[in-house]
Amino acid sequence: MKFKVEMSLDRMRVGKISTPHGSFETPVFIPCATAGAIRCLDVRDLKEIGVKVVLVNTYHIHVKPGDEVVKRLGGIHKFIGFDGVIITDSGGFQAFSLGLGLEHGVGKIANNIFLEGLRKDVKLREKKFAHVSGEGITFKDPKTGKIVNLTPKKAMEIQSNLGSDIIYALDECTSPLSDKEYTEKAMERTHRWAEECLKYYDRKQALFGIVQGGEYKDLRERSAKFMAEKDFAGYGIGGSLGKSKQDMLNVIDCVVPLLPEEKPRHLLGIGAIEDLFNCVERGIDMFDCVTPTREARRGHVFVDPEDGGNMRNKFRLNIKNSEFKFDEKPISKNCECFVCQTYSRAYLRHLYKSNELLFFRLASYHNVYFIIDLMEKIRDSIRDCSFYKLKETWLGR
Amino acid sequence: MKFKVEMSLDRMRVGKISTPHGSFETPVFIPCATAGAIRCLDVRDLKEIGVKVVLVNTYHIHVKPGDEVVKRLGGIHKFIGFDGVIITDSGGFQAFSLGLGLEHGVGKIANNIFLEGLRKDVKLREKKFAHVSGEGITFKDPKTGKIVNLTPKKAMEIQSNLGSDIIYALDECTSPLSDKEYTEKAMERTHRWAEECLKYYDRKQALFGIVQGGEYKDLRERSAKFMAEKDFAGYGIGGSLGKSKQDMLNVIDCVVPLLPEEKPRHLLGIGAIEDLFNCVERGIDMFDCVTPTREARRGHVFVDPEDGGNMRNKFRLNIKNSEFKFDEKPISKNCECFVCQTYSRAYLRHLYKSNELLFFRLASYHNVYFIIDLMEKIRDSIRDCSFYKLKETWLGR
Repeated sequence: MKFKVEMSLDRMRVGKISTPHGSFETPVFIPCATAGAIRCLDVRDLKEIGVKVVLVNTYHIHVKPGDEVVKRLGGIHKFIGFDGVIITDSGGFQAFSLGLGLEHGVGKIANNIFLEGLRKDVKLREKKFAHVSGEGITFKDPKTGKIVNLTPKKAMEIQSNLGSDIIYALDECTSPLSDKEYTEKAMERTHRWAEECLKYYDRKQALFGIVQGGEYKDLRERSAKFMAEKDFAGYGIGGSLGKSKQDMLNVIDCVVPLLPEEKPRHLLGIGAIEDLFNCVERGIDMFDCVTPTREARRGHVFVDPEDGGNMRNKFRLNIKNSEFKFDEKPISKNCECFVCQTYSRAYLRHLYKSNELLFFRLASYHNVYFIIDLMEKIRDSIRDCSFYKLKETWLGR
Repeated sequence: MKFKVEMSLDRMRVGKISTPHGSFETPVFIPCATAGAIRCLDVRDLKEIGVKVVLVNTYHIHVKPGDEVVKRLGGIHKFIGFDGVIITDSGGFQAFSLGLGLEHGVGKIANNIFLEGLRKDVKLREKKFAHVSGEGITFKDPKTGKIVNLTPKKAMEIQSNLGSDIIYALDECTSPLSDKEYTEKAMERTHRWAEECLKYYDRKQALFGIVQGGEYKDLRERSAKFMAEKDFAGYGIGGSLGKSKQDMLNVIDCVVPLLPEEKPRHLLGIGAIEDLFNCVERGIDMFDCVTPTREARRGHVFVDPEDGGNMRNKFRLNIKNSEFKFDEKPISKNCECFVCQTYSRAYLRHLYKSNELLFFRLASYHNVYFIIDLMEKIRDSIRDCSFYKLKETWLGR
């Protein structure tokens, strides 16, 4: 993997990451193909939208269909039919979402309909599904009961079987409710695991390390310095980013200056529109988030400031609102995606209210297109030094 | 609307129906866009697959979003973004599915998950949601409780508001469990309603009449003769087609010769692969059915005889079977659809088992493509007089 910074503006930069499966420009938004699929979008859609890189969750694929199965079928690219760049995470996030996140009642799994019964039942919740020890993470899959032991070596083996282009070292994500003592222990484990991963990873892949340390400035500094000294191809900033947006920006302001200029920086799991602006401004190169498809599932579609999108409404319309019943306009008047070129808000509202699967396809398509397009605008604005003006148009003064 | 028979072979014929929204060749398979959408398929998919005509359910659109809303939004073509031919049914089928079908525990509504509680509860089942009188049908929508009165005049008004190309006269569908006395009464009502519809229908649309009479030969004959004398643009064969496939073929053998040669004949709601062959052979020109998308929902994908498709397995694979875990082959090796050109059975199985929405899109796409393609093969085989050979390849001797 190669990373080349094309130009910079203050702490922002426009760059290019090249891999055996093609290249992409940064700052980039990476849609999540959790179990090997992005909601209702097929690989032709991704090509048309201009998605050049996706993120697949190692843990999900390991559980089903199994990384050995994917290997036998020719690797993850062939398996999911996507010939662009594929990034796999380490499974560490699931240690949070099925572990501490569940115990603390935070994170998406704790809010998952599937586990709704669980969420209401405090006793059950205490039986978290992920346990962390010095050696690694032990998962009990909540659906199947299957036990999965994830050690640093195992995480490297699984990702090697998948054959993704960019892989992640195993880390332990803590929760915003974890105290400093626990967060420090988890960070130290993450550091030990990072060294293990560097020993065992498949040299055909590019290994990224993950900076941990929660919301604690001194821990984040220690972690960033530790990781920066190691020979990683790039860096993720993971784990708890605190309890507010300002906490998150503080973490980034603390970590980014300590990471090597010539390596890409990935803010893991973040992707709201205001975050994209604020974090690109602070030197983040890569984002991944399920936001576009998750919002689509809820009937939310993205609109730009000319359509009335703003910080308050989080740049989205709630398509089920009765105001759209007779609305012949496209979702977003400046959007060139095929959904906006073809369908009215009134029809999309009808599909949503009729529980038609086509809604989820069309809304996912638009939302992913919208964010991919916004990132292109952001890159262009860095190139021609109009970033601050663009940011003001979107976020206001 | 114009119908031109290009050539015939025994009772089969190849023809062309032309409307203000383009033309299509017959025999044709018409996918169902029940509430204005074909499952996960968008209008570009339909164009690519070669779908030139779809059927929309009048009753569903009348309930939601309302035919007046669709009219205000420029009509059904503009509303759903489809510039091909649109046929609307009359709502008479829902008089069966929400009425007698429910009472008799037959038909898809009686098996609908949504109404599962209802199905188990005999008392509730007796409170059927559709009541028929001499004037028309009164529905109580099971979801919303909304009362809908459908008279022949009203059915014509609604379809005029929708602006579909081909419309249907209001009819009453009986159940295979209806006795002859009831079936006769229902048929006579259907005849009176047909005359009303002829009075009131929008002359910009092409009105089809529906032959009723259940499985009773003398009633079917009476109904076919009655309808044949009226000035309809074409004819549907509707209602109960008996208790077996042979009953259905007997009904067709009785009705088709009594209908005018120069008018198209539509076998309503039928579309299994063996039925397509057997009914085309008996002079049917049009089929509509939810089979391709309904089977997709169940994980069933169509395969041809070279893939092992036959009468026993109903020309379908059950993708969730473990035999496909490592199967790198496409669903169907001769299929030229983009799903078969892109994805393996192993990946599709994984998507299905992971409840990924993308499965339903891909399986629906393949299944619709497969049937549209089969109909083209059938038309070609009539043209070059190889129909019987083709039928033997598929159904055996």
